[in-house]
Amino acid sequence: MNINTNMNNIRDRKEDIINNILTEVLEKIRPSGEERKRLRKIFEYIKNRVTACLKNYVNEECFEVSLQGSVAKDTFLSGEADIDIFVIFNPTCTLDPSQILTNFVTWLRTCLKDLPNYTEYAEHPYLIINVKGLDINVVPSFRPLMRNNEVKFLTSVDRTPLHTNYILNKLSAEQRDEVRLLKSFLKALGIYGAEIRIRGFSGYLTELLIAYYGSFINVLKSSRQWRPFKTCIDLEGHYSNEEECLKVFEKSPLIVVDPVDSKRNAAAALSLRSLSIFVLASNLFLHKPSREFFHIYRKGEKLEGYLADEEFRKRGSTFIAVIVGLCEKTSPETIWGQLRRIEKVISQILKERRYAVLYHDSWSDERKIAIIAFELAHLLADCYEVFRGPSALDFENSVRFIEKNLGRILAGPWIDENGYLHVIRKRKRCLEHEFAEVIIPTIENILSIGSVRAVVHTLAEAEKHVAEISGKDVLESFRQWVKDFTYRNLVLDIYTASSDPDTNV
Amino acid sequence: MNINTNMNNIRDRKEDIINNILTEVLEKIRPSGEERKRLRKIFEYIKNRVTACLKNYVNEECFEVSLQGSVAKDTFLSGEADIDIFVIFNPTCTLDPSQILTNFVTWLRTCLKDLPNYTEYAEHPYLIINVKGLDINVVPSFRPLMRNNEVKFLTSVDRTPLHTNYILNKLSAEQRDEVRLLKSFLKALGIYGAEIRIRGFSGYLTELLIAYYGSFINVLKSSRQWRPFKTCIDLEGHYSNEEECLKVFEKSPLIVVDPVDSKRNAAAALSLRSLSIFVLASNLFLHKPSREFFHIYRKGEKLEGYLADEEFRKRGSTFIAVIVGLCEKTSPETIWGQLRRIEKVISQILKERRYAVLYHDSWSDERKIAIIAFELAHLLADCYEVFRGPSALDFENSVRFIEKNLGRILAGPWIDENGYLHVIRKRKRCLEHEFAEVIIPTIENILSIGSVRAVVHTLAEAEKHVAEISGKDVLESFRQWVKDFTYRNLVLDIYTASSDPDTNV
Repeated sequence: MNINTNMNNIRDRKEDIINNILTEVLEKIRPSGEERKRLRKIFEYIKNRVTACLKNYVNEECFEVSLQGSVAKDTFLSGEADIDIFVIFNPTCTLDPSQILTNFVTWLRTCLKDLPNYTEYAEHPYLIINVKGLDINVVPSFRPLMRNNEVKFLTSVDRTPLHTNYILNKLSAEQRDEVRLLKSFLKALGIYGAEIRIRGFSGYLTELLIAYYGSFINVLKSSRQWRPFKTCIDLEGHYSNEEECLKVFEKSPLIVVDPVDSKRNAAAALSLRSLSIFVLASNLFLHKPSREFFHIYRKGEKLEGYLADEEFRKRGSTFIAVIVGLCEKTSPETIWGQLRRIEKVISQILKERRYAVLYHDSWSDERKIAIIAFELAHLLADCYEVFRGPSALDFENSVRFIEKNLGRILAGPWIDENGYLHVIRKRKRCLEHEFAEVIIPTIENILSIGSVRAVVHTLAEAEKHVAEISGKDVLESFRQWVKDFTYRNLVLDIYTASSDPDTNV
Repeated sequence: MNINTNMNNIRDRKEDIINNILTEVLEKIRPSGEERKRLRKIFEYIKNRVTACLKNYVNEECFEVSLQGSVAKDTFLSGEADIDIFVIFNPTCTLDPSQILTNFVTWLRTCLKDLPNYTEYAEHPYLIINVKGLDINVVPSFRPLMRNNEVKFLTSVDRTPLHTNYILNKLSAEQRDEVRLLKSFLKALGIYGAEIRIRGFSGYLTELLIAYYGSFINVLKSSRQWRPFKTCIDLEGHYSNEEECLKVFEKSPLIVVDPVDSKRNAAAALSLRSLSIFVLASNLFLHKPSREFFHIYRKGEKLEGYLADEEFRKRGSTFIAVIVGLCEKTSPETIWGQLRRIEKVISQILKERRYAVLYHDSWSDERKIAIIAFELAHLLADCYEVFRGPSALDFENSVRFIEKNLGRILAGPWIDENGYLHVIRKRKRCLEHEFAEVIIPTIENILSIGSVRAVVHTLAEAEKHVAEISGKDVLESFRQWVKDFTYRNLVLDIYTASSDPDTNV
């Protein structure tokens, strides 16, 4: 047997392994006909209730109740469907759109009192109804208008019905399964969803990628060729070439031109981090395929606060977190928008103060409590820092440096081999005081989602706050986050899940 | 009174203050006629003994016993004179120079048995005789030869008699006092001497600077214009311009062309560090004159090891030192040459291992014990480190990175905002093991001056070793070094000695 045949055999065997895994995964995530039928039935029921209700307020010819989202496109994962119901109003009908948007939720809540429901806030408020444990979003939208040969959208969700149509026409039944595989893959990596918390791949983006590359494996293989900030995927050929496309869009890690709106990047929410995770994981999967790459096979290990504290102690790093009590009825997007912004601001302040921020992340139950957490490297003890001053040959600045530091010099100024002054000096504020005097006031200034409750130094303390404020039922989710914050070892987990393609299936 | 008059008044007052200080310092460091006479007498006595002795071995017409150094040039500090006696052989006389250099010390030791004496090693061995607590160096040298219109020196000390003559002809009596001021100033800063330990200003360089700039204050003022690596001081105009001069000499922080040998830089031993200290201190003195700038007024505070350890504990930094037992009869230059080299090598190894070396220095009694000490910043605990790997988009290197680190990952690999992999990983070796397994073997490889006795983690332990190996009488000198190592605050001491010219004298 020569080397080429041998190589081909290995390649064939790997392809077999991949195919076996994908078949196995699909069996678990592909919904049954029964499940589909049940969801359609629930949709019909709600559609009738909503139609009957809205007729009291709006002329029946002026709106249409329509199934949207992954259930409409048949790209949802078994057991994980949300039903998206859109009420599409005709804006040229009598009622003023802004009036509709203002009253929509109130109208529906009056009629649907018998069903558990609550209001959620995106660009506009919408209603979530819970039927048999299933969340049903009822969203107001408007039929797009044509003006001067251009499509005009009144609200950003108005594109959704066009997306649904596009995908329905574009994807074959097999390709819908490929979408499911890709979604499951992205979910396992924590990069499924365009939310601020995640900044990953939206469902629609996932569908577009399958529409463009044909299959799950092809998306993975093609992702190797993506050059961040320089890749433009243009399914409908809205642009004559990549250059022209790149000129139109702001610097984005990936550009996927929305087929129904050539000015929109369907991947606009995707961060470089999420993109990088995807490309690495794609490569890893092709290199060492394993079930662990799909969310249904990911084991969700947990870690209690006190065990995490032990880890930080062992490393010799410093943990510090801000506990925030949330205001009622703030939308998750608003909460996460502010948490991510605060993470950035605190990191910036700490960096200016020469603390080395190793990692930061936030957690929230999205209702009562949020935690903004940092791991810092000890450079010197909390209250002291090494600082390099000017060259001793630059007299004016040397004197200024000495005078500025007088009274807080612990050692030095000494002069190094290159003639530069160095000191070990007392910090103007220790870490604790930095938080108390600068960071917390800054946070309180930008925080409209709640108020700072405490600054804590251990994850055990943070856990205590979570249990007290939010209740014990969210502890599992918190502990999952504690584990991720402490070990950040998603990539390692996946990598080590299978050490050899041979032993893999 | 207008502003200019006011400024002139301040300037005048400062000049008065400086003049008062210099007068006061000079009174203490200028030797009396009595002291000079006594030193001359000792010289005459030794000269006679040496002449009588050497006549047994060498034709009297072939050598000449001559007073050299700061006593000959009358530039020594009161109470601090060493007597340098040169035996200048005529190399054209019968005896072979190498035979003279080999036998010189043996010959003298046979005749001078009645005086305490020991051999020291520089380029060649020479004899130190102690008379009434005064060290007298008796050094063999050769009259330079003229060959093809060029002066040829057989040994490097052969230039010394020419230096003595040059300075004697060049400096006025007043300028010899200016030399004393400059020497005292340099001594206070720890940068007097061309030895490897110091890499500062030699006595001859000090004299040349006064010869060139005329006075102590002028040297200080002129040093502000020195541009490191670009300044050439050429007293005798051996070069037609600075450019030509700079071309001849290797990159040196300062070039002072030796008037008696145009190819030699009299400042060759001066480090950028010492130069920077001098320039800063010069500026500080002119800005805020104070007696503290002169060595007779510098208070020598001391610090015991256990108190120093307390300081390091407070800062949160790590102290580590290697204790070396010295071989007998190694010359200080050899000891310090190796200590400085080892400091560099260890720093390099630690830096490669991503330890942040804040400071390093060595101490030795130059007889029995040496200590090579380091202060490191804690980045993370001893055994762990943060490491940034490749971009997740670079698959080959990402996989290599993950595989290389498997088994020692504490957290990660996680992917940051820019797509780079990060890990917190176990170090291959902890600091202690790094020393045991890599650093100590490396030191032992390059060490010919002694052998490693111990690695210690506190200055108290180091002090214990010093007391045991070297005896209690060197503890004072060790404790002075401990203070310098811990606080490195020479510049600060000087700066704060006088906060205001008004309150200064």
